Order: sequence, then structure tokens, then C-alpha cells
Amino acid sequence: MDRLGAEKTTMKTSRIGKLIGVSLGPGDPGLITRRAWEVMQSDVHWAYPVRSRSSDSYALDIVQRAGLNMPKNYSPLLFPMTHDPEKLSIYWLEAAQTVLSVLQAGRDVAFLVEGDASTYSTFGHLARTLSALDAAIEVEVIPGVTSFNAAAASVGKPLADVDDTVVIVPAGYGIAMLERLLDDADTLILLKVKPLLNDIIDFLARRNLLAHSCFIEKTGAPEERIVHDVASLKGEKVNYLSLLIIKNPDRQRGEIARGCRKVVRVEEQ
Amino acid sequence: MDRLGAEKTTMKTSRIGKLIGVSLGPGDPGLITRRAWEVMQSDVHWAYPVRSRSSDSYALDIVQRAGLNMPKNYSPLLFPMTHDPEKLSIYWLEAAQTVLSVLQAGRDVAFLVEGDASTYSTFGHLARTLSALDAAIEVEVIPGVTSFNAAAASVGKPLADVDDTVVIVPAGYGIAMLERLLDDADTLILLKVKPLLNDIIDFLARRNLLAHSCFIEKTGAPEERIVHDVASLKGEKVNYLSLLIIKNPDRQRGEIARGCRKVVRVEEQ
Repeated sequence: MDRLGAEKTTMKTSRIGKLIGVSLGPGDPGLITRRAWEVMQSDVHWAYPVRSRSSDSYALDIVQRAGLNMPKNYSPLLFPMTHDPEKLSIYWLEAAQTVLSVLQAGRDVAFLVEGDASTYSTFGHLARTLSALDAAIEVEVIPGVTSFNAAAASVGKPLADVDDTVVIVPAGYGIAMLERLLDDADTLILLKVKPLLNDIIDFLARRNLLAHSCFIEKTGAPEERIVHDVASLKGEKVNYLSLLIIKNPDRQRGEIARGCRKVVRVEEQ
Repeated sequence: MDRLGAEKTTMKTSRIGKLIGVSLGPGDPGLITRRAWEVMQSDVHWAYPVRSRSSDSYALDIVQRAGLNMPKNYSPLLFPMTHDPEKLSIYWLEAAQTVLSVLQAGRDVAFLVEGDASTYSTFGHLARTLSALDAAIEVEVIPGVTSFNAAAASVGKPLADVDDTVVIVPAGYGIAMLERLLDDADTLILLKVKPLLNDIIDFLARRNLLAHSCFIEKTGAPEERIVHDVASLKGEKVNYLSLLIIKNPDRQRGEIARGCRKVVRVEEQ
């Protein structure tokens, strides 16, 4: 090989790929964005989170229901269901190393995630761990439709009208926090309601909010379930992917400053 | 015309169209969903909000940047910039009547909105006013990517990691409310920051949050602007479509209930 050829080879192999966080929306393949669709159909390596070696990937399920075929190159990445920070950091590191080796081979990696990659997603952990391994890696995030935006659309209730405040809380923080936030929230979105659902139903009954609440399970998926009579769920074991949208129509609102207040500047003479 | 022919004509004209809220995302044509794209290219009547008879529509701008041509039939709907509820209800009624006449002629109407149709959108008002005129009208909402999800993606900061709480507030409610909410918010998203920007910058400085804040203007549009040095904006007149993402890394968190707590049931013998 002549010198020029050797240089060309070096240049080619030294091209580093970028990581692309591809948000797929919450489950309905119609809610995939055009940009996400385009990236998945380009010559990229797919990566996607799985809970265990044997379990299916929900992100992959959305893509397959959309009619896309698996590319030649793909990697399931293991993010198990644990809250132990030490265990998690080992899995994040392993996932980041898998991705890094693909990027170093010059290929872009599309990390497929359900919902939105910036909102309660494994993508943030992966991107941060990868940046810690190599700060020069380029990362692109394609935002997506969240489960609560899709849930509001399915139910036909606005999440927020003009001047409304919206609070999104993992329900596990408990009822005292919900009580406190309710004074300032026109809409409360409770995520991960499963472990506290009975307590939440009691709280909603006490505050006369049952008529303004709605439960949505697996929004956008074929098995989506909408329950308006939230009290009927008492004692039921619901899916992990479920949320409550609670409207708070009786909130006492303060004054609101509108438009553009004039900026007063002291002009120098 | 024979009897059968007359019946056919009657059946045909009695078909009532449905209203479809088509969310377009915040500005980048790549963030339009596949379902929204499909609806716009089907044989529907387009409607879109304008601020005045002479002003452009931001929703239409997104669609045109995406390369779609106007259909034969479309209606700009006037939603002026006023907070007077009486004036607004007159405009909503007029818009709903325009839409209703198209639906009654048997055509579906796609109401094009920037962002997400359930989140701070004119769509909710239109749908409610239309339902008041004719409760039988079918309404479909196609959810979309919100400005704050797209802003987080552009900035490369997660909106929410696992167990995070997110509070979305129109900034005009004032600093006292932000102070109060900060105790329970891992992420504060401040919308409509324009009139209070100087006060907000002082507040962020006082709470040592300037380093954790980011300003984003017209996210997804060609003129998108990201400002990490938020204090540098003091005294500046910013665009109406601008927001702040504020992370609150020092929040004191309580315990969180996780997983599935066993539901205790008294079994009948």
C-alpha cells in the first residue's frame, strides 16, 4: 500500500460515530417523528434497553409495530430493574462501553427509547456515562411525544390551558407532598402510581378530585386502558406504565404579570 | 332522480366530518409525527390560528418549511392576543362556527397547532366551543412534541431523571410562587419569561441556580437561540416564545415508595 493509501485508511478508521437518542413516543407507531423515522432507516447501528437478557424491549416493540425491520447490526443493552446505584453504574458502564466500541468503529448508534429521551429515560444515564469515557463523543437527541401528552390527547382533556401550572410527580413521594403541591397546580400528573394507588384514591376522594381525575395505562399501546372512574381501581394491581391526570379546578390563583413590562434603564448622559 | 338515488344523496350529505387537532411540534419540521403528516396529506380541510387578519401563522410556517403545499380548502381562524374573556369567547365562537360549517358539509378539519394540542394551545378552546355548539361532533387529538421537550433535547440536559419532579409554570405568577415550588421541584420550566426576566435572573442569582439554568428562544425554529449565561440577558427584550429550564440539584428529597406494595385483601372463606 502506498503512503497516500495508508493515510486514507487512517482517516477512514479515525472517523468516530455519534450517539443519537431516538425518542419513539409512548407506544403508538404513528407518534414517531419524521426525524426519528429517517434516522432509523439510515445506516445506523441500533441499540435499545432491555430489563434482562431474556426480556423484550418495549422500544423495539414500538418500532416493529411500525413495520420497520431490524438492521444488520444492533445491540440490546441491559438496564435491569434495580435502584441500587452501585449495581446500576456497572450496567451503565457496560452499556456505554458497548456503544463506544461501535462509535470508535466509525458507526453512528441510534439508541431507541420509548417516550421522550429527556424525560424519565435511560438515555440520560447512557449519554453521561459515555461522555465520562470520552468527552469528545457527539450526542444528538431527537425529542419525542411523552406518555402524558399522549394520555391527555387520548382522554381529550387539555394538560394545560393558558396560565395553567403543571406539576409532574412520581407518586411514590407520598401524599403529603401531593397535598402541598396541589395549592399551586392546575394539573397534577402522577407517574408510577402502582405502589400507592389506594392511598392516592383516598386522597382524591378527600379533596373532591375524583371527578376531575383520569387513569391511563400503557398509553398508545394496543392494550391502552382509560379509566374515568378512578375509585373503581381500588385494590387492583395495575401495570407499571400507568399514570393519573388530575385537574384542580378550584385552585385559588394569584395575579399574573403579562406581556412585556417596560425595561427601565438609566441612560448615561 | 329515482328514490334510491335521492336516498343515496341524503346519506352522502348527512355525513358529518370530525375535528382533528394536529400537533406539529415546536418548530423543526422533523419533529412532526407520522400520523400528523399522514392526516395533512389526506383530503382534509386545513384550519390554523392567526393573531390578526394580516399576520402569518406559526403553525403554517412549520408545515411550509416541511415542504407541504396548501390544500385547496383552508381557513385561517382569528385568535387575537387578548386576555379579555368576553372578547375571546366571541372569537372562539366565530372560529367554531367556521369549522362547524365545514364539518357539516361532510369534510374533516385538521386544526394545525405548533407544539402539542393539549399543552397551552388554542385547540382546547376551539374543541370545547365546538362541542357546545354540537355535542355529537367527533374530536381526535394527535399529540406532539412540546417546546420544553425539544428545548431539553437541544440543550442536551434531561428534563427529568428517575424520581425527579418537574414543575411547569407560566413565569408571570411571580417570584414568591417560584420560591415556594422550588422546594419540591428538581426541574422548573418557566414559560412566558419575557415580562419578568430581570426579576427571575435576580431570583436565580439569590438561590445560586444561575449555573444550572438555561434560556431557550424559539426552539426548533431556524432562529433558535440557546443562552447558558442567563445573567447576560438582563435588560434584554426577548422573544415571546422563550423559556427557562432550571435544574435544582440541591433539593432535599424525601423517601420514595417503590415497586409494587402488596395489596392486603381479606379473603372470604
